[in-house]
Amino acid sequence: MSENPKIRFGIIGCANIARKVARAINLAPNSTLYAIASRSMEKAHKFAANNGLSETVKIYGSYDQVLDDPCVDAVYMPLPTSLHLHWAVLAAHKKKHLLLEKPVALDVAQLDHILEACESNGVQFMTGSMWLHHPRTAKLKDLISDSKLFGPINYIHSSSTGPGTKEFLENNIRVKPDLDALGALGDLGWYCIEAALWAKDNQLPTTVTALPDVTKNSAGVILSFTASIQWEPLDHTVATIHCSFLSHTSMDLSISASNGTMRCNDYIIPYAENSASFEFTSGAKFAELHIGWSVSPEEVRVISQLPQEALMVQELSRLAEGIREFGYRPDRKWPDISRNTQLVLDAVKKSIDLGCKPVSL
Amino acid sequence: MSENPKIRFGIIGCANIARKVARAINLAPNSTLYAIASRSMEKAHKFAANNGLSETVKIYGSYDQVLDDPCVDAVYMPLPTSLHLHWAVLAAHKKKHLLLEKPVALDVAQLDHILEACESNGVQFMTGSMWLHHPRTAKLKDLISDSKLFGPINYIHSSSTGPGTKEFLENNIRVKPDLDALGALGDLGWYCIEAALWAKDNQLPTTVTALPDVTKNSAGVILSFTASIQWEPLDHTVATIHCSFLSHTSMDLSISASNGTMRCNDYIIPYAENSASFEFTSGAKFAELHIGWSVSPEEVRVISQLPQEALMVQELSRLAEGIREFGYRPDRKWPDISRNTQLVLDAVKKSIDLGCKPVSL
Repeated sequence: MSENPKIRFGIIGCANIARKVARAINLAPNSTLYAIASRSMEKAHKFAANNGLSETVKIYGSYDQVLDDPCVDAVYMPLPTSLHLHWAVLAAHKKKHLLLEKPVALDVAQLDHILEACESNGVQFMTGSMWLHHPRTAKLKDLISDSKLFGPINYIHSSSTGPGTKEFLENNIRVKPDLDALGALGDLGWYCIEAALWAKDNQLPTTVTALPDVTKNSAGVILSFTASIQWEPLDHTVATIHCSFLSHTSMDLSISASNGTMRCNDYIIPYAENSASFEFTSGAKFAELHIGWSVSPEEVRVISQLPQEALMVQELSRLAEGIREFGYRPDRKWPDISRNTQLVLDAVKKSIDLGCKPVSL
Repeated sequence: MSENPKIRFGIIGCANIARKVARAINLAPNSTLYAIASRSMEKAHKFAANNGLSETVKIYGSYDQVLDDPCVDAVYMPLPTSLHLHWAVLAAHKKKHLLLEKPVALDVAQLDHILEACESNGVQFMTGSMWLHHPRTAKLKDLISDSKLFGPINYIHSSSTGPGTKEFLENNIRVKPDLDALGALGDLGWYCIEAALWAKDNQLPTTVTALPDVTKNSAGVILSFTASIQWEPLDHTVATIHCSFLSHTSMDLSISASNGTMRCNDYIIPYAENSASFEFTSGAKFAELHIGWSVSPEEVRVISQLPQEALMVQELSRLAEGIREFGYRPDRKWPDISRNTQLVLDAVKKSIDLGCKPVSL
């Protein structure tokens, strides 16, 4: 495949996160950054200069220009969520593979429009959830799938919080009802819900219940919430998630099973780029007289040759190459993960709107 | 104080945990094990032999004999919870200081009888919560009280699970309705609730809500539950706790505040006896391009000269000495902590009984 021309990316929107993904596109061996667009040429040029982009990268002053450029194979779209429906559907109609920043849509009805547009145009859809592509995540999955070391999962806990700064709470698009109306539920909750579904092999839960500690800003945007997710009566797994813009940065995932416990406290963005770890304990008993444990947590460290965001881009490009070179259908895996995440997210929102009543899925 | 005679302990009930506390009583420099009692002489002798107790330790075949022995200053009572009301009240009437194993009572009405008996007889009450006496716990408190490093607490999470074995679920007294009727709520929930209150300086919450994932055994004893605890509208702190007899051993406490995050995964029984740690992160930002963190978690390790259970015994004996030598009143701190813990525990139980409705305190 390495002799095939690289997948050419256009970036629509020069958000802060686009800087990271622009770098990632050039790090991914099967991908290249071909074009960027902002709403003004000035902003786009500034972005190119600030990020040392190659002079060969096309600079556009409107999103339409990227979508109309036949050389663009795939677009990365870090726009505010309220703009996704329009631009993502348009990108699909223009036959561009789509790497859509999370939260992908305001609700599952919007997402279904986007997914249907991708499906009917034969383009690959993928959410910009980088952590799913880290080799640590695969290693974690191996562990929690090990029936002897780990066993049936009983409890999942994830919290995602940050940054708690005044500046963020006043100015960030994630607290603006016309831009990212889902607030902390969309921005942070996306990860926690995705992680819970990931642990459960993307199996949809049966009930979602928000807890009464929801905090909103004066515009009604969720700043902080806690919720529980249940897979009963299918099985006995329960997850709790806590997300807040009001606390210091944290991104914890812990999973308790019959035979083991796993903890990872930087699962969304690893502390360092090239190496990441998690810890687990299996078969722990108390020492004689209960004055200690028979085993201590074991650290598993995973080296990553490429950062997770480059692995994400590489995966999208691999699928895009398959479609281009071999006429494959788009892979349902990524849209399915995103749709289930959105369904649970919608259920949390509904539970909050209903005063924390349980919502069935 | 070292010239004063040591506080002489009697142990009522030869439960497994009594082995640990017997050792602790002899490790505490101001305490000595004076007598043990079981319901039969045979059991008591076996306990003494198995634990290498000194020949000077009196062996009794009934609990009453310990309480009637005027040389006994304090009793440690690791009996099943349903027996506490009778024996703890009797011990207080016999002027014995009381180290009562948790869960201390089946409800706050029972506990109030016990506390009133201790109060009116001028004896010290203390619950057998060892972790509160570990120097790590004090160090943790210093950290979370630091307004710069940590700031206002927004979220507390604690889970306590274990051991998930078939043998435990069939035979342990903690799953028997006539012995420890509170099941996992009493045995494991006690710690999680206590930890949440500890973090909040023993301030009572306003609302408690159980989550719908309660699991009970065929006799109706709680095996697993999740609950949220809120201090709103006093402030915005919320805690979630998860306790289960169905999962592998874990005892996690994490606290998120405006400026920092703290995690401790062995807070109830440290991995090792003489040294224990926690980790915290403060002022974390993302590195340039969000490809890592500006700071990694810092490990704080605390050396303990005596195990936490010996420090607990030492503290009870210190207070008992103060009462004996100087005529002090019993310290309200320990009964107050226990009573608030019981109040929240009762509220969780009520919420479970009401089908997970929020319960106000």
